[in-house]
Amino acid sequence: MSQTPETQVDEEKDEHPEVEIEEGDEFGLGEEHLSQLRDHLRDGDEKGVRDLFEDLHYADAADILQQLKSDDRTQVYQIVGTSFDPDIISELDEDILEEVVEEMGANQVAHAISEMDSDDALSVLEELDEDDQKEVLEALPIGERSIILEGLSFPEDSAGRLMQRDLVAVPSFWTVGETLDYLRGDVDLPDDFYEIFVVDPMFKPLGTVPLSRLMRNKRPIRVSSLMEEQLTTVPVDTDQEEVAFIFRDRDLVSAPVVDENARLLGVITIDDVVDVIDEEHEEDIMRMGGVTQDEFYSSAVDAAKSRIVWLVINLGTAILASMVIGLFSDTIEKLVALAVLMPIVASMGGNAGTQTLTIAVRAIAMKELTPANALRVVGKEVAVGSVNGIIFAVLIGTATWAWFGDAKLAAVIGAAMVVNMVVAGFSGALIPVALDRFGADPAISSSVFLTTVTDVVGFFAFLGLAALVLL
Amino acid sequence: MSQTPETQVDEEKDEHPEVEIEEGDEFGLGEEHLSQLRDHLRDGDEKGVRDLFEDLHYADAADILQQLKSDDRTQVYQIVGTSFDPDIISELDEDILEEVVEEMGANQVAHAISEMDSDDALSVLEELDEDDQKEVLEALPIGERSIILEGLSFPEDSAGRLMQRDLVAVPSFWTVGETLDYLRGDVDLPDDFYEIFVVDPMFKPLGTVPLSRLMRNKRPIRVSSLMEEQLTTVPVDTDQEEVAFIFRDRDLVSAPVVDENARLLGVITIDDVVDVIDEEHEEDIMRMGGVTQDEFYSSAVDAAKSRIVWLVINLGTAILASMVIGLFSDTIEKLVALAVLMPIVASMGGNAGTQTLTIAVRAIAMKELTPANALRVVGKEVAVGSVNGIIFAVLIGTATWAWFGDAKLAAVIGAAMVVNMVVAGFSGALIPVALDRFGADPAISSSVFLTTVTDVVGFFAFLGLAALVLL
Repeated sequence: MSQTPETQVDEEKDEHPEVEIEEGDEFGLGEEHLSQLRDHLRDGDEKGVRDLFEDLHYADAADILQQLKSDDRTQVYQIVGTSFDPDIISELDEDILEEVVEEMGANQVAHAISEMDSDDALSVLEELDEDDQKEVLEALPIGERSIILEGLSFPEDSAGRLMQRDLVAVPSFWTVGETLDYLRGDVDLPDDFYEIFVVDPMFKPLGTVPLSRLMRNKRPIRVSSLMEEQLTTVPVDTDQEEVAFIFRDRDLVSAPVVDENARLLGVITIDDVVDVIDEEHEEDIMRMGGVTQDEFYSSAVDAAKSRIVWLVINLGTAILASMVIGLFSDTIEKLVALAVLMPIVASMGGNAGTQTLTIAVRAIAMKELTPANALRVVGKEVAVGSVNGIIFAVLIGTATWAWFGDAKLAAVIGAAMVVNMVVAGFSGALIPVALDRFGADPAISSSVFLTTVTDVVGFFAFLGLAALVLL
Repeated sequence: MSQTPETQVDEEKDEHPEVEIEEGDEFGLGEEHLSQLRDHLRDGDEKGVRDLFEDLHYADAADILQQLKSDDRTQVYQIVGTSFDPDIISELDEDILEEVVEEMGANQVAHAISEMDSDDALSVLEELDEDDQKEVLEALPIGERSIILEGLSFPEDSAGRLMQRDLVAVPSFWTVGETLDYLRGDVDLPDDFYEIFVVDPMFKPLGTVPLSRLMRNKRPIRVSSLMEEQLTTVPVDTDQEEVAFIFRDRDLVSAPVVDENARLLGVITIDDVVDVIDEEHEEDIMRMGGVTQDEFYSSAVDAAKSRIVWLVINLGTAILASMVIGLFSDTIEKLVALAVLMPIVASMGGNAGTQTLTIAVRAIAMKELTPANALRVVGKEVAVGSVNGIIFAVLIGTATWAWFGDAKLAAVIGAAMVVNMVVAGFSGALIPVALDRFGADPAISSSVFLTTVTDVVGFFAFLGLAALVLL
């Protein structure tokens, strides 16, 4: 910082250089910058491009880069070249990241990675495909390479991949004075840190001391008498989803990571956990929508490919439902109103079941729905299905009577509606519980099973009852 | 802390009192504790209940409480009474919270709230219904009441509701030495803090200094020369969803909150933002599943009620689709295979459209899908729909030919499949973009519109083509 405090204050008063967020387009979009960049590229104004990238916040630069056409991006790589901010790279989506490696070359990417924090570097390398990863790793200096390789040796999506290795740890017999002198000494410490760890001679974490507490106490006091003892340690191979759960459950802002001998390896802070929460959330949303990954930046052909599996599965269940209808071809031939009305019963069952499923899947993820209360929850959902089943039986029965003037048909569709909505409540709660019990992730697979059940039962109940009662 | 450092270390070595997370049931479930508690309640062992609640982490205690039957909970309130840990209350779900207020009385809840941090207290009071809120507020001491009332005066879900009022701010002309002396002095400071704010004479934030940096610099240095200047200030009325977006976009761990005159009011830290992110996730998931709120702990009747609106809307769209089928009653009567096959076309369109919708809604939320690239995205999704439409046309055409031995019927269903999947791609991308443009939340309403379109188009294309070609 070159300014004296006085000029600093004056400038601030006059120009408000801090970021203001009053205007909607300040964050994320940056459409103005995007069109500026496009103009520069069209005019071949290389200095303009370079200046623009220097001024932008790295998150905005990454956003803008992702919005460009592939050709324009290539041009940007060539112009900005070595002065590309490493932080931009750490913000890019997987698809764009691989393009960057291809266009900029492994050496330049390795250079950028060597300037990142170790956990950011690791998360970029994780996203590369195997060949690119190898190439970039080989281009890294030996020191950085070994840290990254150790990081990669921990299981994917585990605490070991999330943790920062930089931390401050002191022995429990040190005093506040000794600790302060150590921190002020010429040692290699992290840039900024907020607490120090107190460890035993085996480097096992005993507690943490927030810096504010360290600063406000007298020099002769032992750090061990100031420390927070209720430590929640995270084994290095803990899955990141579990890590996120622990942080939320315990309201943690940081947690020490330990190896199998309970020795301190690193620290996970809540800002790393936010990324995990976002990732898991994205996965949940994608799964619910039948998409395997966010392919917003993929080509149409890649996107089409990645969606096929889910569509094939759905084609299978749709054909199964059709076969159920096929059993009743004769009935439909005699009373074509059945064909007109049958999708209503199936669709209402599907929607009611999805409501139950949503509540149940979430309660399982939050560990609120357990084997201990599963029976009660299923019972409640059956009750909900019965209540709403009766309500919608009356509604659709009345509508059917008005439409087709056939009281028996109205009674049949009403009865089928009750049956299907009770079944929907029952299976909407039971399917995820059962999948969870058998070790499957209820978020992924529940909805196929559920809609298969509600389609089959919906068509079978309605057409079957019709065959019995009406013909 | 009463132990001397030495006994502390010894104890730690022998008994490992820090929390270990090796066993799956240590977190969340606590089934063992739950059954212990049930035993104590059955045996009328009041001391056992009290001891159990004293030993438990407050998050676990809240979990266990929520898993009990309502009668058992009432018993617990009576037994634990005044010694109820306030932190337990801040962890409870809305439904249980209102029960607690009813059972424990406003005075006792007010007492608990007065012991919480101001932002926790605010978030508990927010969740109460108006009458309970009023009662508890009146039972609060005047000091706490006015802080809470000021908090409640900020818009719901705004930065003002999230921020902590406790912070450390110093003038920019102070030196490190002056600041350290102030912090060590006998002033009323927050328990733990990680950075100090530097403010101008108007109390406008100029920058922040991490404690570690303050501690490692010499006494005569001015704080203004150490501070981080790139401040992202959040106006007090910013919506919490926007706050979360800013934190993620800028990788922030904390941000100062300012009033309309840009004066420092409080600070939002990333742990507050995690709760917001979770809340928003929950909303997203619930909306996608057609549920208005998490009613896991509601009664069956309340749950049934809260789900009715969505089901009524779906009944409407299902009836609309039926009316389309009704237009072709004569056609179906002549060829009942149409009734058997028609749900396949509608269902595949619905699923393909939902895939597109999922990608689009998320990209809008992440501000990746903007008016600037909307046309390109819609084009891509139409391309995806065409590719997959042709693939599934071939699949279902072949299956239909094999099943009904009718090449013309196979061609009709194939053609209808292509049409519906192209329409699904088009509307899956366009509907959320259009809703967003008109200020509606695309996450809530997109899917009804979409499935209405894919059902109507699916039935119309298939039955209409069949009427033209086959009869």
